[in-house]
Amino acid sequence: MSRATVRDVARATGLSIATVSRVLNGQANVAQHTREAVLRAVDQLGARAPRPRGAKPTGSIYVRCPYLLTDYFGLIVSSVAETLALHGHQVVLSAGTSAQRARVLPDLAGRADVGGAVLILPPEPAEELVRLRDRRFPFVVVDPRTELPRDVASVSAAHFAGARRLMAHLVELGHRRIGVLGGPRDWQASDGRLAGYAAALSDVGVLPSPELLRHVDEPTDEQGHRVAGELLDLPERPTALVAFNDKMAVGALRAARERGLSVPGDVSVAGFDDLDLSRATRPELTTVRQPLQEMGRMAVTLLVRLLDRHELEALHVELATELVVRASTGPVPHR
Amino acid sequence: MSRATVRDVARATGLSIATVSRVLNGQANVAQHTREAVLRAVDQLGARAPRPRGAKPTGSIYVRCPYLLTDYFGLIVSSVAETLALHGHQVVLSAGTSAQRARVLPDLAGRADVGGAVLILPPEPAEELVRLRDRRFPFVVVDPRTELPRDVASVSAAHFAGARRLMAHLVELGHRRIGVLGGPRDWQASDGRLAGYAAALSDVGVLPSPELLRHVDEPTDEQGHRVAGELLDLPERPTALVAFNDKMAVGALRAARERGLSVPGDVSVAGFDDLDLSRATRPELTTVRQPLQEMGRMAVTLLVRLLDRHELEALHVELATELVVRASTGPVPHR
Repeated sequence: MSRATVRDVARATGLSIATVSRVLNGQANVAQHTREAVLRAVDQLGARAPRPRGAKPTGSIYVRCPYLLTDYFGLIVSSVAETLALHGHQVVLSAGTSAQRARVLPDLAGRADVGGAVLILPPEPAEELVRLRDRRFPFVVVDPRTELPRDVASVSAAHFAGARRLMAHLVELGHRRIGVLGGPRDWQASDGRLAGYAAALSDVGVLPSPELLRHVDEPTDEQGHRVAGELLDLPERPTALVAFNDKMAVGALRAARERGLSVPGDVSVAGFDDLDLSRATRPELTTVRQPLQEMGRMAVTLLVRLLDRHELEALHVELATELVVRASTGPVPHR
Repeated sequence: MSRATVRDVARATGLSIATVSRVLNGQANVAQHTREAVLRAVDQLGARAPRPRGAKPTGSIYVRCPYLLTDYFGLIVSSVAETLALHGHQVVLSAGTSAQRARVLPDLAGRADVGGAVLILPPEPAEELVRLRDRRFPFVVVDPRTELPRDVASVSAAHFAGARRLMAHLVELGHRRIGVLGGPRDWQASDGRLAGYAAALSDVGVLPSPELLRHVDEPTDEQGHRVAGELLDLPERPTALVAFNDKMAVGALRAARERGLSVPGDVSVAGFDDLDLSRATRPELTTVRQPLQEMGRMAVTLLVRLLDRHELEALHVELATELVVRASTGPVPHR
């Protein structure tokens, strides 16, 4: 299936080639209904839509983070904002959980006031992101929730490698019954981390036991506390608990304490993220450091290249995570 | 000194009354050099500048937070962004420590793309904020660093009352030698909290001892750890330490632990803010809850009224703080 040209779109819409080009290149001086007519035609072409040209879109970048800007998301957004400012771009921000309700993607390509976007953990299904790409709107996804096609630019942390390294650390300490406080079931991050868990266990000939795996909808302290309690109350107690973020690990520490279990003497506990939180606990948390600020900077680097209409060779960038061993993990207890 | 009129500004600048009005009401359809001529004339008038009329400025609001968006600032910015979105305003964000270097205030009133601002803990001296007010640009300051004139709108937490309540709690537990891990010396928040400290001690006939007061430039875990160590190593050790944020309190807990001191058995430790951090420590931190999200919402409420050219009766809004007693404070030890 050959790619359509700007001329084809002009013919289909009855507009001039110059006008179609202006829309496709994100320029502002086009009437709204004309812009929409072009985008409708491009939508119909899908993957056959013409390639972009060389013009530069407007200087404002839409940044959406549909979560509270606390230590995790706040660090990503800070670094996105600082890096965009360095590149002379203004940030139009949408943040907070209410940003999940607004349907923004369908209109984003049609907006004259923003020339690109950074979308953090977007809640939309992959098809909507693909449609936005088809409209040739430059954007980068940080921490994609689901798998994206190769040509949608994204930045994420190495979930599989990070989890595998953490699990290998526990396996080296002799742990085999490792409980998992997992994130939302259908997130790519959960999937990658679970694969790392299975890989490290399989290296020592152990199959993950389904009863040791719990998923939560919201990875909070309270949910971590609840599912850690369930795991610690199993007839055959796990000797280690791994939480898919530090907040849940804090809840797990509390659940252990309430049962009179010492950490790491009776049970090891580990987190993920390496927030400030992980050095405030007693014992301090073993965790996997996510390069949150670097993720923000890398997202802007990719976006700036998309804005410059450079071809990107690596559109999916995965940044390395790092195992941080502190005091909350230790040798498997003797029974 | 009588207030000047729009006519006076028109005469001084040689422009029409209609043009001067458009600039003063923040409308976009004015050439840049014309806008600047009007603003220069308004600058010279200072407090004598004419009152605004009824027109509505543009829908974008500039939000600046010259700090990393972590649990403290991130919660304020999230709530500012969510509330502005509810009011149909778009957020133009400047965030991260590099935002401290940009000189934005002098140009803000002249910008056609933003119609108002929320400035969080602005690093500029009060005179610059006063000059922005004189230019009749609608803005609200959250957490002002220094005292502002009555007619510059601001939202802050009740630093004095919060600190006094916390200190009274320690005084009731029998503490008299209370060490203070203070914030930057010239900040209004530090000043108000120190006054609360002095007031609670003076209620029991005690004068604050200068040797028990330390200021830090950056209220971090590390700085808290350092000054807590200094205080705990005094020949006559304080029986309680109060940190002006939770991060410093986490450092203070570590300093106590390193000296083999139990908390609260040997020394009580308290924080300020009530971040997630304060429930992750062992013992959990007694702290003063700051209504961060409410501060963001209130700032937007004030701003929206300024944008609507309503007269505000209370331009300085102080929101109540709340003492949260957890396990890190206890009775003064018997010596």
